[in-house]
Amino acid sequence: MTHSLADGWFTEVFDQQGSAFSLKVKGKIDSAQSEFQSIDIYDTETFGKLMVIDGCTMVSTRENFVYHEMMSHVALFAHPAPKKVAIIGGGDCGTLREVLKHTGVEQVWQIDIDELVTRMSEKHFPELCESNDDPRANILFADGIQWIKDCEPESLDVIIIDSTDPVGPAEGLFAVDFYQDCFKALAPLGIVVQQSESPLYHSNSIIKKIHVDMAAAGASSSHTVPFPQVIYPSGWWSCTLASKGGDTTSFRIEDSAAKSFRTEYYNAEMHAAGLAIPEFMRRALGMAD
Amino acid sequence: MTHSLADGWFTEVFDQQGSAFSLKVKGKIDSAQSEFQSIDIYDTETFGKLMVIDGCTMVSTRENFVYHEMMSHVALFAHPAPKKVAIIGGGDCGTLREVLKHTGVEQVWQIDIDELVTRMSEKHFPELCESNDDPRANILFADGIQWIKDCEPESLDVIIIDSTDPVGPAEGLFAVDFYQDCFKALAPLGIVVQQSESPLYHSNSIIKKIHVDMAAAGASSSHTVPFPQVIYPSGWWSCTLASKGGDTTSFRIEDSAAKSFRTEYYNAEMHAAGLAIPEFMRRALGMAD
Repeated sequence: MTHSLADGWFTEVFDQQGSAFSLKVKGKIDSAQSEFQSIDIYDTETFGKLMVIDGCTMVSTRENFVYHEMMSHVALFAHPAPKKVAIIGGGDCGTLREVLKHTGVEQVWQIDIDELVTRMSEKHFPELCESNDDPRANILFADGIQWIKDCEPESLDVIIIDSTDPVGPAEGLFAVDFYQDCFKALAPLGIVVQQSESPLYHSNSIIKKIHVDMAAAGASSSHTVPFPQVIYPSGWWSCTLASKGGDTTSFRIEDSAAKSFRTEYYNAEMHAAGLAIPEFMRRALGMAD
Repeated sequence: MTHSLADGWFTEVFDQQGSAFSLKVKGKIDSAQSEFQSIDIYDTETFGKLMVIDGCTMVSTRENFVYHEMMSHVALFAHPAPKKVAIIGGGDCGTLREVLKHTGVEQVWQIDIDELVTRMSEKHFPELCESNDDPRANILFADGIQWIKDCEPESLDVIIIDSTDPVGPAEGLFAVDFYQDCFKALAPLGIVVQQSESPLYHSNSIIKKIHVDMAAAGASSSHTVPFPQVIYPSGWWSCTLASKGGDTTSFRIEDSAAKSFRTEYYNAEMHAAGLAIPEFMRRALGMAD
């Protein structure tokens, strides 16, 4: 998976699509292996620190804000009044930090299978972990699939599936069985949001399948929101929302416009903008001829 | 500039930002040198053909549609009734093809300094050149700066600056003198649109400067529209519109929604979405604190 552009670069090769992205690095500054995956930390020249899991770029200091804000605020402002939130995966704690910016949120559970991700994030991305001691935060290291299965029915408002790619440990998070358990755990009007890969690379495959599977699991509506993510394959990424009885294309626009916290990417206009779908995607997803 | 990831890959290194993008290639299938620049054509594994000018990726078969549609349709639907359009640069003819889809357009002049770009595009990207014989199309090979300077005042409705990066032959296209000549050539409510590099890399530099320079040249309003562009540095790109007396954030939404031609990326919702600006950019451009 990891080829070297030359000494002094980290490269992620995305074999399926014959593309690769590289960052110039000062060096690898940490490395560890859990029972699930290997984690490397690089110090880059212009992107700050870079976390790499099993050869795939996960988080950089410079531009993780887009992903974390879009994975959290879109779903939380789409829900009428989110109080109980679960994050499946998300061990770097960046999504947790964003969720906790919502003062109406009463409890958040973050369930990542791999404690090492969080330990590495605490060490190298302390800014992402700055809300970990919030009394509303429950940071658990367990199997998220089982945790959702064991959830009290109708006990959650938002479930955020902040996972790695649908291979290896995260494969079971892209499956209709898991989505059914999510919908059982969601209260009425609850929302599940999942990172859903690249609009250019995956509209006809992973993204399309998520919509089909979410509908099969009981979603009343689902919608994909594209956003740029420079270090991920193709530099263009997405999340997909699905609702239990509500509409994923509406949101609390006044609350979003009057939000009390600072963001770097998200705002009410960007939320509305994220709901627009390019023509080729509309065709791939059966939204246009 | 061009380092090799390994045999079988084309890599563009973006030195200023310590990043690189690579495509797996079957081979280099053509190469030529003009008095201005060197042009290489690669056959890639999954992106179709790739045109590279002086080591920088310009056009791939797979995803040039985003750039060409956003460079043309946003400006043309922002203008109340565009009839006369000039494209400065644009030698691959992809923007020209999109402009000619507008039946209200009466005349288009494409002025690229380098005839070799067009000859290479005709050979390797014939689909981009399919409208070159349209009787409304005037394909010229000349210095666009001089051509605009010599234009009859108030004779153009839209000027599209479809150039390479602001180094080398295109440097003079990112300058207040040139913008003043553009505004002189534009009729009232005329619009100039320029490719304006990466929101992540250039909001505080090139993009900010374009707004300042456009205002100095007489723009009544200017606005940057971000869009994904997978093969360009950071995978995230933009164009910046400036108007002579009009508002760059309004557009003919009904006409756009009822457009008679097929697109792959652009639609009325994507046009509106493109007008939203991420928070960090709003701050960089002085639109927010």
